[in-house]
Amino acid sequence: MEYFEKTISSELVYKGNIINVERVTVELPNGKLATRDVVRNRGAAAIVPVTSDGCIILVEQFRKPNERVFIEIPAGKLDEGEAPENCAIRELEEETGYRAESLKKILTLNPTPAFADELLHIYIATGLTKGEAKPDEDEFISAKSYPAKEVLDMIEKGIITDSKSVAGILLAARMLKL
Amino acid sequence: MEYFEKTISSELVYKGNIINVERVTVELPNGKLATRDVVRNRGAAAIVPVTSDGCIILVEQFRKPNERVFIEIPAGKLDEGEAPENCAIRELEEETGYRAESLKKILTLNPTPAFADELLHIYIATGLTKGEAKPDEDEFISAKSYPAKEVLDMIEKGIITDSKSVAGILLAARMLKL
Repeated sequence: MEYFEKTISSELVYKGNIINVERVTVELPNGKLATRDVVRNRGAAAIVPVTSDGCIILVEQFRKPNERVFIEIPAGKLDEGEAPENCAIRELEEETGYRAESLKKILTLNPTPAFADELLHIYIATGLTKGEAKPDEDEFISAKSYPAKEVLDMIEKGIITDSKSVAGILLAARMLKL
Repeated sequence: MEYFEKTISSELVYKGNIINVERVTVELPNGKLATRDVVRNRGAAAIVPVTSDGCIILVEQFRKPNERVFIEIPAGKLDEGEAPENCAIRELEEETGYRAESLKKILTLNPTPAFADELLHIYIATGLTKGEAKPDEDEFISAKSYPAKEVLDMIEKGIITDSKSVAGILLAARMLKL
């Protein structure tokens, strides 16, 4: 499709902890002007950790926007200049204590393309060995292992609703025939 | 898990077209204070339209944050007070011209629970009959039908990367055995 919105001007309207927000004025293909809300951040890596006996490791974490605990795959923001693969290895160990022998990229996800530029790099991790979780000082996370079938049921029942987790787990299940 | 972040104060820092942004000060379980960036919006509905011959209707749309065209399932924001199911029916017809005999809710997705409260209501639409697409005046969207197998390949190859589309299509494929 021949289609593009040319940037006319852009204004930084909010500088937050993990996001910046810009109001961008664009020219539409019909020549009219419009404004777009754009949330920018550094992106993140997420991991579907699959054990040798067919379990998936998930974490529980309180998320302020919806005021509730979410069950998600382990994930975390990229540090400045950090390669997504290194971030995935680091976050898996910090949040769950597991180290992975093998990491395979399965997906680069755009969680919210309508208003955010965030990219989420999703990996399957296998060859897992268990150590101690080392969450950041102000991070309150607990990890638990579930049979893959139970995890897929949790998606169908609406217990797992986080997009990176739903997309990553369903794609991993398809690729690994879980 | 016993875990909650109590709101101490909240400040509206940006009022945009489709989002508002708040900076929320919270008390962590260890008694420390922290701030959370929270993007709020009204939510949206999205539809996986499956034709009687096993095709899926997708739309192409330019998305400013990543400066590119995305291939997505049809979707749109809830109007004020609009029921998600009505929004799904409306957006399907506006963006693709199709009317659905049957609509089945399969998922309520949180695209970005870390910093946004957005809920995405995802439906499978079947019993489709084709009419004329009626996009909003300043909406530039084109719809196209693809065999389900090709759509699943587009996810595995990284051509479809939008979270609602990846999650919705993979779940629909699993439920309908596509």
